[in-house]
Amino acid sequence: MNAFGQSLLPGAAHQLFDDAALCRAFLDFESALAEAQAAEGLIPLEAAAAITAACEATPLNAQALADEARHGGAMAVPLVAMIAATLEQRGQTHAVRYLHFGATTQDVVDTAQVLMTQQALAQLLSPLEQCIALLQDQAARHASTPMLARTLLQPAQIMSWGLKCASWLQPLRRSHAHLLSLSKQALLLQLGGATGNQSALGEAGERIAARMAKRLGLGHAASSWHTQRDAWLRFGLEVAVLMGSLSKIAKDLALLSQAEVAEVSEGAPASATPGGAARGGSSAMPHKRNPVACMQAIAACAQGPGIAATLLSTMAQAHERGLGEWQAEIAVWPQLWIQAFGATSAIRDALSGLQVDTVRMARNIDSLQGLVHSEGLTQALAAAVGKPLARARIQALGPLALARQTPLLQLLIEDTCVQALPEGPRTALHVSLAAACDLGLVTEPSARLCNRLLEEARI
Amino acid sequence: MNAFGQSLLPGAAHQLFDDAALCRAFLDFESALAEAQAAEGLIPLEAAAAITAACEATPLNAQALADEARHGGAMAVPLVAMIAATLEQRGQTHAVRYLHFGATTQDVVDTAQVLMTQQALAQLLSPLEQCIALLQDQAARHASTPMLARTLLQPAQIMSWGLKCASWLQPLRRSHAHLLSLSKQALLLQLGGATGNQSALGEAGERIAARMAKRLGLGHAASSWHTQRDAWLRFGLEVAVLMGSLSKIAKDLALLSQAEVAEVSEGAPASATPGGAARGGSSAMPHKRNPVACMQAIAACAQGPGIAATLLSTMAQAHERGLGEWQAEIAVWPQLWIQAFGATSAIRDALSGLQVDTVRMARNIDSLQGLVHSEGLTQALAAAVGKPLARARIQALGPLALARQTPLLQLLIEDTCVQALPEGPRTALHVSLAAACDLGLVTEPSARLCNRLLEEARI
Amino acid sequence: MNAFGQSLLPGAAHQLFDDAALCRAFLDFESALAEAQAAEGLIPLEAAAAITAACEATPLNAQALADEARHGGAMAVPLVAMIAATLEQRGQTHAVRYLHFGATTQDVVDTAQVLMTQQALAQLLSPLEQCIALLQDQAARHASTPMLARTLLQPAQIMSWGLKCASWLQPLRRSHAHLLSLSKQALLLQLGGATGNQSALGEAGERIAARMAKRLGLGHAASSWHTQRDAWLRFGLEVAVLMGSLSKIAKDLALLSQAEVAEVSEGAPASATPGGAARGGSSAMPHKRNPVACMQAIAACAQGPGIAATLLSTMAQAHERGLGEWQAEIAVWPQLWIQAFGATSAIRDALSGLQVDTVRMARNIDSLQGLVHSEGLTQALAAAVGKPLARARIQALGPLALARQTPLLQLLIEDTCVQALPEGPRTALHVSLAAACDLGLVTEPSARLCNRLLEEARI
Amino acid sequence: MNAFGQSLLPGAAHQLFDDAALCRAFLDFESALAEAQAAEGLIPLEAAAAITAACEATPLNAQALADEARHGGAMAVPLVAMIAATLEQRGQTHAVRYLHFGATTQDVVDTAQVLMTQQALAQLLSPLEQCIALLQDQAARHASTPMLARTLLQPAQIMSWGLKCASWLQPLRRSHAHLLSLSKQALLLQLGGATGNQSALGEAGERIAARMAKRLGLGHAASSWHTQRDAWLRFGLEVAVLMGSLSKIAKDLALLSQAEVAEVSEGAPASATPGGAARGGSSAMPHKRNPVACMQAIAACAQGPGIAATLLSTMAQAHERGLGEWQAEIAVWPQLWIQAFGATSAIRDALSGLQVDTVRMARNIDSLQGLVHSEGLTQALAAAVGKPLARARIQALGPLALARQTPLLQLLIEDTCVQALPEGPRTALHVSLAAACDLGLVTEPSARLCNRLLEEARI
Repeated sequence: MNAFGQSLLPGAAHQLFDDAALCRAFLDFESALAEAQAAEGLIPLEAAAAITAACEATPLNAQALADEARHGGAMAVPLVAMIAATLEQRGQTHAVRYLHFGATTQDVVDTAQVLMTQQALAQLLSPLEQCIALLQDQAARHASTPMLARTLLQPAQIMSWGLKCASWLQPLRRSHAHLLSLSKQALLLQLGGATGNQSALGEAGERIAARMAKRLGLGHAASSWHTQRDAWLRFGLEVAVLMGSLSKIAKDLALLSQAEVAEVSEGAPASATPGGAARGGSSAMPHKRNPVACMQAIAACAQGPGIAATLLSTMAQAHERGLGEWQAEIAVWPQLWIQAFGATSAIRDALSGLQVDTVRMARNIDSLQGLVHSEGLTQALAAAVGKPLARARIQALGPLALARQTPLLQLLIEDTCVQALPEGPRTALHVSLAAACDLGLVTEPSARLCNRLLEEARI
Repeated sequence: MNAFGQSLLPGAAHQLFDDAALCRAFLDFESALAEAQAAEGLIPLEAAAAITAACEATPLNAQALADEARHGGAMAVPLVAMIAATLEQRGQTHAVRYLHFGATTQDVVDTAQVLMTQQALAQLLSPLEQCIALLQDQAARHASTPMLARTLLQPAQIMSWGLKCASWLQPLRRSHAHLLSLSKQALLLQLGGATGNQSALGEAGERIAARMAKRLGLGHAASSWHTQRDAWLRFGLEVAVLMGSLSKIAKDLALLSQAEVAEVSEGAPASATPGGAARGGSSAMPHKRNPVACMQAIAACAQGPGIAATLLSTMAQAHERGLGEWQAEIAVWPQLWIQAFGATSAIRDALSGLQVDTVRMARNIDSLQGLVHSEGLTQALAAAVGKPLARARIQALGPLALARQTPLLQLLIEDTCVQALPEGPRTALHVSLAAACDLGLVTEPSARLCNRLLEEARI
Repeated sequence: MNAFGQSLLPGAAHQLFDDAALCRAFLDFESALAEAQAAEGLIPLEAAAAITAACEATPLNAQALADEARHGGAMAVPLVAMIAATLEQRGQTHAVRYLHFGATTQDVVDTAQVLMTQQALAQLLSPLEQCIALLQDQAARHASTPMLARTLLQPAQIMSWGLKCASWLQPLRRSHAHLLSLSKQALLLQLGGATGNQSALGEAGERIAARMAKRLGLGHAASSWHTQRDAWLRFGLEVAVLMGSLSKIAKDLALLSQAEVAEVSEGAPASATPGGAARGGSSAMPHKRNPVACMQAIAACAQGPGIAATLLSTMAQAHERGLGEWQAEIAVWPQLWIQAFGATSAIRDALSGLQVDTVRMARNIDSLQGLVHSEGLTQALAAAVGKPLARARIQALGPLALARQTPLLQLLIEDTCVQALPEGPRTALHVSLAAACDLGLVTEPSARLCNRLLEEARI
Repeated sequence: MNAFGQSLLPGAAHQLFDDAALCRAFLDFESALAEAQAAEGLIPLEAAAAITAACEATPLNAQALADEARHGGAMAVPLVAMIAATLEQRGQTHAVRYLHFGATTQDVVDTAQVLMTQQALAQLLSPLEQCIALLQDQAARHASTPMLARTLLQPAQIMSWGLKCASWLQPLRRSHAHLLSLSKQALLLQLGGATGNQSALGEAGERIAARMAKRLGLGHAASSWHTQRDAWLRFGLEVAVLMGSLSKIAKDLALLSQAEVAEVSEGAPASATPGGAARGGSSAMPHKRNPVACMQAIAACAQGPGIAATLLSTMAQAHERGLGEWQAEIAVWPQLWIQAFGATSAIRDALSGLQVDTVRMARNIDSLQGLVHSEGLTQALAAAVGKPLARARIQALGPLALARQTPLLQLLIEDTCVQALPEGPRTALHVSLAAACDLGLVTEPSARLCNRLLEEARI
């Protein structure tokens, strides 16, 4: 990924699934394998000790690994050769034959992918938890702050900014929980041997796997999952779902940031250096303050569906190891995590410096002259004059309210259908019409719901 | 979907999400809404009774619904008008104003989608459970039946047909469990009102929702999920994962059915009528017996990743109701279930009539002259002559075995590197080499694993 | 597709690729085949005449075709049986053996797909041409109508509404041209026989194909394209590109329709009946006027990328006929055209009734107090005081202009950095600063470009 | 991309779109811009000379560019700052204000992407042309070499290996032609300025663009294409189509390479070093010879549909610059080319060392006992005994032929339906039945078609 791609992602994204992490994981696998096999008596203890030491000492050359594997197709071959070279240099040729014993390329590559994914998950959860905390804070502070609810990009009714934040929050909490629970089913050691049945390990296979898994901090399953990757995919798809939920937040924030709406704006990101260039500046337009974090989140999330489709399409792996499908999955998988980490970090940045303009929120409501209260006004009016007439009058007076910049409530009170009522009902109607337009009252359902959601989140 | 598309799917797929089901669900929603609102005192009991009766009596015209909604954009408008017309015909105009009270188009459409999905799930689980039972049966009967394991489309080692079936089985069982558990989080009533905060229902909102959910056999959540559809998507993606797992079975079966491999073949499907045309016949080639069920499964599963991508891409729904994203999700969702039902039924058909040719499995092993035992032979030989020489000899003799149609074991025994050994070690080596080629012995790890997986499935 | 899906599409979409069209095309193929083979002496003339007449007279039962093909896998088998039944009823059993001679299921299915696609193309081009004409008209009328250009959802500079329309226009014109040119490479007869080499037709194969193609109004290629479907896919992907271009128009229109922007709004659609329900009305909010056509276009276009991915993924068709890949392509293909027809029609509806509020466009510009002229003001100021100071002053005064609701131009003129200039340069600067804010002048580049694009379109 | 991803791709893929290429292209853009503006009198000649020299001399720090752009969102800002720093170091501060004049980030980023894509195209065409040449050679040599045609993974009839190669060849030739022709519409300079209307360049804009395009070896369009990216996408989708065509070759080769089919096998790749490890070796199974090049091609092509979907989904770019959609397209685009280059190179490797076993092709035909001649035999027999009986006998005798390992021809001749014929017709029937099984005769249609396709390719 070149500098442009990097510029859309947090700096640390660079390190996820990089060569250093891959090589470290390769060596950890071989080391743990030898140790576990020695403990189970499958290979000599000295051989295991020599292998473990050699794994510590071998400086893997990632470029050479790639070059050899490109030619031969099996990455374990050059990997084993490099460790073997260390053993030979150290005069421990005797241990070479016990190296990578009973394992296959897919075992070491899959397990390395799992180990790197475990790190990626930890990296991802940190900004995700920050997003959750920031949204909880906004929701708690603004449970009753009225703002326009908008449907089909048109103002609809009144909700609260707190409820909006609490709504964004729910799917993030659910994804957090699912990521943790699915990780237990997905972050598993792979140890199947040539075709997945651990044939070379004999009856000790399961015990060896259990030892290795413990040593590497992973789970392990009754059988290898080399071609049955549903648990792995399910875990990855949860990441894609999270990206979908983040993309909604990013889109909403970007829409609210439009100069014509201006209810929120991105402030400086948490990571902004004091002397840094202006956030969101344009090379051509000095006045611009672009929602850069939203842009980064949207750019990252845009890649989620395509990556998910590619991963799903690799599931039809032929027989006991796919021809190309498995390899494609391994190659594409990191992109999912890198982009998800980018999106989560960007939303964290957007939320952490968010400027919320509650005055503008109120002004945007006012400018609609009460049309967003139509449903309540119609209900109130209908009780007095019947639904058909109520609906007809409100549809007629709505455009007038906008054209004359006069509150719909006022036009209704002056309307003959109301004026014609006897005084008692008319007075009662005035009260119920006014209630339908009372921002405090109409925000109540949203506040109530917001608080209920926060309560749930606390449990 | 025209006759060609239909021909790839079970006949019953036709009815999933069709107009009859949609209209039934629409009416059930309105009926349950009125009932619950009456029970909570929000609307008069007589109104609710009239509405419920009208919903029973209204023959919805799906075409007219579509035509009106195409124009106005909101399907509830013509729906309510049609029920209102019934009420008026029956002289119950008084109830019209209580119809669809406090609800919005998305409430009724989403809930209808949920109700239809509940039926689709039931439809899907039936062939899925049959697949699981059929695979368990095959696995139990063939735990020790040797067959070639193949990696990268090349023969690799020995496994058992039972283990193959047990491996296919695992992801189906996992998907079955996840479908059931995710359905509880996804098959939820939608009742949010205009913008999702139930503002028109007041404090009774939650109780009304609870009553409706119970009446409709659905769950309900603390808040409406109109724009936070992660739980819904997660459920749908599990269907896509299932399709991925099915696509692997279909590909494996198709590969094993090739005339050159011929280890299995599709028999007559469960649904075949006695006098029916030959299964898998060709219009041009009378001798052909095509794996029709696999073809149908592959055709269905090929659509999974693209549908999943589309669904994921609809998650960025603007504000309190998306402009187009929500609608696209609703429109595409049925395809997921229809194709998954098709794929599952096709695999069920393939498995239920499957002809397994264990003799051919053995013959295919034999024809490789023992090369698939290379790993075991190398291990045995390495113990006697060292790994480098062992590996070199086996690589040299392998092609010879194929060329001469002579077992590799025999060539090895005659090889000078073995002949040169002293008698004692040589005799021992003969034993260990023979063991490495003993089909019974080399099938053992697979049988063991197969039985362990079956044991797990039983729990 | 149920009523909900139908409600997002034009009524006529229903008929694209439906059973009636499919059956008609099937019979046309068999009829043309017999005729061509008779003309080339491959089958008797009377047989061809009987077959042609039988094809006219046979009422194909699409449901029965689907049912039989579901079982047997080859749709031509029941198709031929149905025509044969007609022949037999008419006492022309002699002709049965010449029916479908030398052809295979894929020949008739692919050719039917081509014939239906030819009709779909004609259907699609009609609203596409209307979109082009409507945009040309808008562009011509509004070449100099100033409006805000917006980047990253923020106001950037001034452009013209005409240029916006002319920009939307270009890709539609290019897609129109490409659709026509690619259709010549894609709308080809399929006639390959059992495996694509026309083996049963002998040397007459190519002449028969030429005759059939002419009769059916199709092109034909040197060889059958049964497994080499790149030209076909390329044609389909152009439809996906068109959907991408339409989705941009839909998004822009929807954004411009936001109540807070309000520069355009959808009027009544061309197809609106006078007495019809209000366009874009809401069941819950009587004041709502939703951009229904944009919603439909966005919902349709959202399906393009996923469909394109599925189609592309079917290209790896094994050997001389894919197992499932071909069938999936055939099943998915209609969706592409139906959704594209829907999107194009929806944009045509949106444009045909579009209300353009040029006053609001001007007001939206004014409300930014001239900040959108920053680039020009900076250039003018920089010529007098140097770029660094110019940039600094404008960045400082911009927020002030917004806060004080005072034009940036005025603040600049009053700024000390300008006041400090000697009179001559100051006066000149006043002129150049004013020019940078002159709407007429700053709209000129857009007007020029708009007219150039229109000029090109005329050629 | 880590070493695993790299191992699936040619070594040179590493350099496509890398930081060095990006920085070079950035500087070339700024240099060409200044030069063209000076030539048109927009900026002083000395300023242009200084800028050009500074662009030569500036060592761009890609990491710093990414870091700054991550913060500010606009890559041109740090880019311009770095060149400005060089100018200042050289005492040419006067030129700073003319740097990047009238351009915006998207201009330089899009143009850089175009320049890198131009290089990627050149890289891609080289192995593509080698594939074409290799297939032409195979087709020419094997026009009449009989092999099984297979449909739905089952043997169908006879074709020739030459025709198979000629069929693979067609789409590659078409993609080659389309890539060249679409490149003329896609490899265009981007120069739109802040919002795409070149407002800062005045009337000279088009002339400047023409000069720049010429200098950079690119085309240019009447208007900038910053948000109308259909021509660009169309070009990219052709790459996806090419990947689809390559994936078919890879799948066919892999299927033909199965040990049970064994008609072809990958030899050593063109790039194999003499002392290299065995091609396609396994770490666990010394006898394995895996089709590594096919595996790489399949892994690369598996990513095409998902990438295409992502690119298509970015087309809905809001207003005059998308918020995230544009950036996602830029970030994802390189993957398309890198994977396509990988796939094309891998197929080139597979073809260049391909071992074709024509003896095995013949043996695989023989082993089917003539069942693949059923269509011809049925036709011949039908002429003598009628189609129904002919079809019935052949369906009855086919399985018998396989079971008894006896040619179907022989069983037919011995069949009572033939024996019962009078001698004359019987003798004639013998001749026509034998002709239907004559490999030379039945291969003729394929040879004829193969040669016709080669003839076309020559033109």
